Amino acid sequence: MSAPRTNLPVDPARIADVIDGLAAITEPDRPYTRRAFTALHPEGRAFLEARFREAGLETRIDAAGNLIGRRPGKTPGLGTIMLGSHSDTVPDGGRFDGIAGVAAALAVARALIERGTELDHDLEIVDFLAEEVSIFGVSCIGSRGMAGVLPEDWLARESGGLTLAEGIRQAGGDPLRLAGEARGDIATFLELHIEQGPVLEEEKFDIGVVTAIAGITRIEIVVEGRADHAGTTPMGGRADALAAAARLVTGVEALAKSFSGGRFHFTATVGEFSIEPNAANVVPSRARLLIDARAEERAMMELFVNSLDQMAEQIARETGTAISTPRRISDNPPTPSDAMLVKVLDEACSAVGASHRRMVSGAGHDTAWMARVTRSAMIFVPCRGGRSHAPEEFAENDDIALGASVLLHAVIQLDHGLQTLNQEGR
Amino acid sequence: MSAPRTNLPVDPARIADVIDGLAAITEPDRPYTRRAFTALHPEGRAFLEARFREAGLETRIDAAGNLIGRRPGKTPGLGTIMLGSHSDTVPDGGRFDGIAGVAAALAVARALIERGTELDHDLEIVDFLAEEVSIFGVSCIGSRGMAGVLPEDWLARESGGLTLAEGIRQAGGDPLRLAGEARGDIATFLELHIEQGPVLEEEKFDIGVVTAIAGITRIEIVVEGRADHAGTTPMGGRADALAAAARLVTGVEALAKSFSGGRFHFTATVGEFSIEPNAANVVPSRARLLIDARAEERAMMELFVNSLDQMAEQIARETGTAISTPRRISDNPPTPSDAMLVKVLDEACSAVGASHRRMVSGAGHDTAWMARVTRSAMIFVPCRGGRSHAPEEFAENDDIALGASVLLHAVIQLDHGLQTLNQEGR
Repeated sequence: MSAPRTNLPVDPARIADVIDGLAAITEPDRPYTRRAFTALHPEGRAFLEARFREAGLETRIDAAGNLIGRRPGKTPGLGTIMLGSHSDTVPDGGRFDGIAGVAAALAVARALIERGTELDHDLEIVDFLAEEVSIFGVSCIGSRGMAGVLPEDWLARESGGLTLAEGIRQAGGDPLRLAGEARGDIATFLELHIEQGPVLEEEKFDIGVVTAIAGITRIEIVVEGRADHAGTTPMGGRADALAAAARLVTGVEALAKSFSGGRFHFTATVGEFSIEPNAANVVPSRARLLIDARAEERAMMELFVNSLDQMAEQIARETGTAISTPRRISDNPPTPSDAMLVKVLDEACSAVGASHRRMVSGAGHDTAWMARVTRSAMIFVPCRGGRSHAPEEFAENDDIALGASVLLHAVIQLDHGLQTLNQEGR
Repeated sequence: MSAPRTNLPVDPARIADVIDGLAAITEPDRPYTRRAFTALHPEGRAFLEARFREAGLETRIDAAGNLIGRRPGKTPGLGTIMLGSHSDTVPDGGRFDGIAGVAAALAVARALIERGTELDHDLEIVDFLAEEVSIFGVSCIGSRGMAGVLPEDWLARESGGLTLAEGIRQAGGDPLRLAGEARGDIATFLELHIEQGPVLEEEKFDIGVVTAIAGITRIEIVVEGRADHAGTTPMGGRADALAAAARLVTGVEALAKSFSGGRFHFTATVGEFSIEPNAANVVPSRARLLIDARAEERAMMELFVNSLDQMAEQIARETGTAISTPRRISDNPPTPSDAMLVKVLDEACSAVGASHRRMVSGAGHDTAWMARVTRSAMIFVPCRGGRSHAPEEFAENDDIALGASVLLHAVIQLDHGLQTLNQEGR
C-alpha cells in the first residue's frame, strides 16, 4: 500500500480516533461485534454523536433511525451533499467495514470546518442504521428507509420479542413516518468503503472508483432423492440427492467461471448447503443449495439463471432425482454509479495523487439504495488479503485518509459543479 | 412375493402375533420407535418373555442383557443351537427389522414343541440387546457381549445421565460379569432378517442365503478452504471447500460404481456432509464428509481407501484446498458365513420349496459378532421396495413364515449333523 503520507488535506489521526473508539465498543468475548438493535449499538452511536458535535455538526436521528450530522450551506435550497456509511457490524466482524466510511465522512466535514471552507450546499454526514443483515434477517434498513423503499411489512418482523418497528423506534427513529417518504433534498451521495476483495491490494492501487454495484440474486434449489440403506442398496439402484447436488455445485462453479472471464463482473457461490437425513448409513434423500449470484450486467444474470434451469433438468434426468426449478428467493438488479460522479471521483484521485482504477462492487452497499433518490457513487480503499466480515479485517489508516482526501476534493468540486448540472437537468 | 401358503410347518399366525404385539409397543407419536435403554424397551421385553414362557421355554437375561428362552436338549453337553435377532428399533423405524427374526425363532421353537420333536442339542431363542445404534452411539451391545468382545471402556459411555453399564443393568444384565466372557457352549447360530434391500423382491426370490456380511469402514475427510466474500472475490482467486468436496462426492460415487460392477458386493455412500460457515454470502471455508464403505472382500476395501487417498490429493492440488488424508474412524472386516451352514440353508430352502439365491448382507447384523464364537449364518426374506429403518418398512407375513420354515428344517438337520461335524473337528 502507499507509503505514510504526512501532507494529506484530511487528518489521518481523526480517522484513527473514530475507528479505534468504535473498535473498543464491542461484545468483549467476540471482537468485533456491534450489531444493530443490540445493546452495544446505541453505545457506538453515542460515541459517534459526540464526535459529530465536537466537529461542530448539528445532530439528529431521522425517521429511519439514521444518525445524521449537519452543516448548513451558504445558499439555502440547493440541497444536501451527503457522505457516509454504517457503523453496525456482522457477528465476529471487523473494525473497518462501514466504519471507515463514517470516519472518512466525518474527517471530510472536520477538514472543511477547520479550513473555514463554507459550502453552498448543506453537508450531511450519515451513519446508516443496520446495513448488515440484522437480527431481523434483513439489511440496509436505514438507507432503504431514507430512499422511501423499506417494505412496510418488514416493520412487523420479529426477533427475540422485538419488532423491527420497535427496533427503529429504540434507535430514535419514527417508523410511522417512514412509509413511502423518500428524502427529496439530497443533491448527491458519496460513500467510502473498504474493498472487501483482493483486487486493489494485488494490483497496488490506492483507490477503486466504483462504476456499479453488482445485482445480487439468491437462488434456491432443492434436490429430492430417496433414502435407501447405504449398505444394502446396490450402487445402480439409488437416487442419491447428495450425488446429484454435488454435480450442481460443480456445474455452478464451472458456469460462474465461464461467465466471469470476460469484461463484466460475475460471481456465483453455493454458500448454503445441507442434506437430509445426514446419517452415516443412509443414502441422502434431500439436499438444499442456496446460490449467491452477482452480476454487473442484468442480462448476464438472466442467462445464468436460464443455464441453471437447464443444468438442473439434465442432472435430474441423469441421476433419477427430482430437482426443483431454481427459485429466486431475492433478486436485486445492478446499480450503475452516476456517470458524472465517476468522472469527478477519477479527477479527484488524480488531483490528490491517488493511483486508481475503476471497478465493480461485488458486495451490496447503502449506496445502492441511495441511488434510488439521488446521484450516487462510491470509492473503495484497499484491505489486507481481501478479508472482511472477520476480526482480521484490516485497512491502512493512511489509505483511508487518502480516500477521505479524494472525497474532500470531490465534495468541493461538486459544490460548484452540481448547481450547473442541476440547472441543465440531470 | 409368494402366494399365501397354508401348509407351512411353521404357523404364520404365530409370527403375526409377535410382530403385531411389538408394533403396538411404540412411542405413540412416532411409530415405530422402541429403542433400547428407553422406557418402552422393557415393555417389549415383557411381552416377548410372556410369549417365550407360553411356548414352554425357560427364560433368563444373560450378563449382556440379552433375553433368552431355552429348551434343554435330550443329550447334555452337545451345546446349544441358537436362533434369534433383536427387538429394538431405530427412531421412527419399522415393524420387521430384527423383530421378524425374533418372531421366526420363537415360531420355530413352538413348532418343535407342538410337534413333540425333541432335539439332542439345547435350543435357545435370543432377543439381543441394542442391535441398532443406541442412545450411547454404539450398536450390537448384546451380541458383542455374548461374544466377549464388548469393549470395556464402552461401559462408561453416558447418555442423558445414564451409563451403558447402568443401562445393561437396568435391562437385567450384569456388566461386571461381561469382561472377556464369551459363551463357549454355542454349537451354531442362525438369524432370519428382512433383506433391507431391493434384490429379493426385484428378482422374485423367497429367500436369500447370506454368504457374508460385508465389512463396514467409515472414512472421514475434511476439506479446508478459505472463507472469502462471495461477491467481491473473483472466481479465479478462491479456495472453495464446497466445490472441492463436491468433486470428492462425485469421485466416491464413480469409484464405488466401478468397484460394484463385478462379482463382489461393494457400496460407498457419503451419508454425512456439512459445510462451514454455511452462510449465503461467504465462500465455504470447510467441508466434512463421512463415507460409509462396505465390501465383501477386504482387499477391495483396501484398494478403495488407497484410491480415495490419491483422489483427495489430486482434488486438493486442483482446487487450492487442503484435504485431510482420509481417516478411518471405524473399520470392521467382512464376516464370511460358515460354509457348512450355507449348504444346510440352501438344502433347507429346497426342501421347503423356497426359491433362493445366495447373497451378501450389506448391512451389519448380530450374526457378525456371533460368528466370533460359533458357526453362524443368516437368511434374508424380501421386504417391500427395500425400505427399512422407516415406518413403511414391510415384509409379507407368509414370507417370514416361509423363512421360519427354512430355519426349522435347518435346525432339525443340524441337530443330527453338528454332532458328526464337531466330532470331525471344525
